[in-house]
Amino acid sequence: MFLSSKSLEKEKDHVEGFAPELAWVTKAGDKDLEVPVAIRPTSEAVMYPYYAKWIRSHRDLPLRLNQWNSVVRWEAKQTTPFLRTREFLWQEGHTAHLTEELAGKEVLEILELYAGVYEQLLAVPVVRGRKTENEKFAGGYYTTTVEGYIPSNGRGIQGATSHCLGQNFSKMFDITVEDPANKGSHIHVWQNSWGLSTRVIGVMIMVHGDDKGLVLPPRIAKTQTILIPVGINKSTTPEDRKKHEEQLDGIRDTLKKAGVRAESDWREGYTPAWKFNDWELKGVPLRIEFGPKDAAKEVVSWARRDTGEKGTIPIAEVATKVPELLETIQADMYAKAEKSFREHRLQITKWEDVLPALDDKNVVLIPFCGDGKCEDRIKELTTREDTQPDVPESQKLPSMGMKSLCIPFEQPEGVVAGETDCLSPECQRKAQFWTMFGRSY
Amino acid sequence: MFLSSKSLEKEKDHVEGFAPELAWVTKAGDKDLEVPVAIRPTSEAVMYPYYAKWIRSHRDLPLRLNQWNSVVRWEAKQTTPFLRTREFLWQEGHTAHLTEELAGKEVLEILELYAGVYEQLLAVPVVRGRKTENEKFAGGYYTTTVEGYIPSNGRGIQGATSHCLGQNFSKMFDITVEDPANKGSHIHVWQNSWGLSTRVIGVMIMVHGDDKGLVLPPRIAKTQTILIPVGINKSTTPEDRKKHEEQLDGIRDTLKKAGVRAESDWREGYTPAWKFNDWELKGVPLRIEFGPKDAAKEVVSWARRDTGEKGTIPIAEVATKVPELLETIQADMYAKAEKSFREHRLQITKWEDVLPALDDKNVVLIPFCGDGKCEDRIKELTTREDTQPDVPESQKLPSMGMKSLCIPFEQPEGVVAGETDCLSPECQRKAQFWTMFGRSY
Repeated sequence: MFLSSKSLEKEKDHVEGFAPELAWVTKAGDKDLEVPVAIRPTSEAVMYPYYAKWIRSHRDLPLRLNQWNSVVRWEAKQTTPFLRTREFLWQEGHTAHLTEELAGKEVLEILELYAGVYEQLLAVPVVRGRKTENEKFAGGYYTTTVEGYIPSNGRGIQGATSHCLGQNFSKMFDITVEDPANKGSHIHVWQNSWGLSTRVIGVMIMVHGDDKGLVLPPRIAKTQTILIPVGINKSTTPEDRKKHEEQLDGIRDTLKKAGVRAESDWREGYTPAWKFNDWELKGVPLRIEFGPKDAAKEVVSWARRDTGEKGTIPIAEVATKVPELLETIQADMYAKAEKSFREHRLQITKWEDVLPALDDKNVVLIPFCGDGKCEDRIKELTTREDTQPDVPESQKLPSMGMKSLCIPFEQPEGVVAGETDCLSPECQRKAQFWTMFGRSY
Repeated sequence: MFLSSKSLEKEKDHVEGFAPELAWVTKAGDKDLEVPVAIRPTSEAVMYPYYAKWIRSHRDLPLRLNQWNSVVRWEAKQTTPFLRTREFLWQEGHTAHLTEELAGKEVLEILELYAGVYEQLLAVPVVRGRKTENEKFAGGYYTTTVEGYIPSNGRGIQGATSHCLGQNFSKMFDITVEDPANKGSHIHVWQNSWGLSTRVIGVMIMVHGDDKGLVLPPRIAKTQTILIPVGINKSTTPEDRKKHEEQLDGIRDTLKKAGVRAESDWREGYTPAWKFNDWELKGVPLRIEFGPKDAAKEVVSWARRDTGEKGTIPIAEVATKVPELLETIQADMYAKAEKSFREHRLQITKWEDVLPALDDKNVVLIPFCGDGKCEDRIKELTTREDTQPDVPESQKLPSMGMKSLCIPFEQPEGVVAGETDCLSPECQRKAQFWTMFGRSY
């Protein structure tokens, strides 16, 4: 968990990038420590001294380790549960390879796994791309990223990153192997690091949730289908009640055998309406209601959490129709989120269109030169001064300036590198690529 | 990970117990924090404010949560890898129950699980018992423990603890439910907490390891059986080599099908002797050597890591004989460790026998009154003053005094509570029980 400043300082850009956010332990019990220690903000500087010991031969490569742990970054920015917290739980992978090519291949493989977590599991679309020099990992060679979009406020959010560290750290921590092609000479290994945090949960909540509570995509819902008995009341005879119970739990068991994570809610003392709300709050994708009327018609009644749509399924068909319905919900949730992100990702070619687009809850693709100072200036130029100090915060237009989210791998037509102008009104350079900018977390 | 002093201070004994070991974050970046935060040494004070929100009705009980996380206790004592480190990874369970009886039952169930981890998995014997008042969890009601023994230095070591917190924390954090038997009145819940850390790995290494390296019990060994080709050299034809390879890997596959975690070591450029040492260092319980001579006799040759014993098994019988042999190794390792602990757990009834027993690498069972100050004094009385300041540390008799390890649940004959004298030469009280004392970690 701890990091000495000695180890951290080995990679100059790395320490500069993280220093402002380091939490320092300076005291133990009532005594001041002789040498304060920082809580790790990421584990490169903790792990790589050991990599130098463990990696002796090219036969030790690739070395690929992953760990799940909390890290601490004491951000000055406002914190938001799950999305930006000072302590967060993540996995961080740290790998070492013989060549740049092998490292680079893995960077993209991992990025695609992260994209899969968002798109395939969480039904959240992401844009794959590369970070600008300003936004890349401190001390790294280049950073790839998947970027998401929060419809309710139009902000972009970094989903997960996969970095190629190049040989920057291996040179500082002296991680070498003998060159297999050239006995006696040594090669500094090529390193990657990559991480995904519990932020994914927050993004999923923000993208799909509504005013009734969570809306969970079926693939990751702990309970995919909740069965709620209806039409059972004080006038129901114990025999009828028992019969109904057995039938409903029988349907639940049929669903379980079909691979559906189904539960029935037999809690006493709550009305069906109360239970409906309770499970909607918890985001369960599909509710099945089952009462004596349904039993008489040999159907179950269902209601989707995502759209509110309702219908019935013959009891005899639940084992096939419910899994189908869940896959439909999953696909529809993704399609809706994808449409929303696509429609709010605007290609902008006039500077004066930028701020209105942001205010209209869009992220923007602009021709950009890639220069770090130009990027800083773009942020300043899009930061709104507070001209109405007496208006309540919630009624003002957002003041937050935009920063770069990524240079998408999929580049639309229209920017010719070295010919098209950079969009910044103060920049004399030529654009290199379309770059996605936005207000962000 | 962090804890405010406000929350920590709610339980007075708890904060007093942990305050000397708290690591304090006082600075972030280059700014001093207005309110320093401590890194949690255990999570009661972090979690229980939430328990107060989550637990509303007796229907919410029992609430049973477990988490794996690192905690920090900045010990002044010497640290030892795995056994006593300032940061350690553990699981901590925190549960809430309606009655003392239900809580007490769980305390013992969990303790038995911990005993099972040591005895059934790690082949390490433990003594089950209760901690004295001095050694119980700070702020708790009572603490149960499993205590181990390190043969090489004769020290006791706490294996894992299961605490009943009583209502101490629920009163301070206001965790209540309506009394189901008495509407309108409220009951403070009964709480437990229990933890087992990666210390188990250290204890296992210390109990079984030898000068050649690790000795792993088969049940927890990642590789239970390593197959090493022998008698293959430069004069072996490629055909013969291929045939041998297929036969050895076939045996490995047979073992895998039989549920044995078996691997073959085909690494080039290393002699069989080098490989033997390498796998001994790693503690693999059973080595199988297989060469052309074995093939001709239709046997495999084996060697046990724990005893060095060797033998052969017909190839046709490996699927039954190897699993049997692994279970024998497991049982023998436990039996050896159990005998060692039993023979070094001495019942002592004369004070003058205590120090020689400790120096002879024993832990001792003594009649003890249970009083905290008496226990402190026993530690002082058994701490050896340094009368030979010029003799090197390694040649001196140990100076460390003894502390109580536990009051074993299994009490031998010989102490009659309230009649037998406490063994401390300065104590006027009567003994309550046999108590196990020892030098410890």
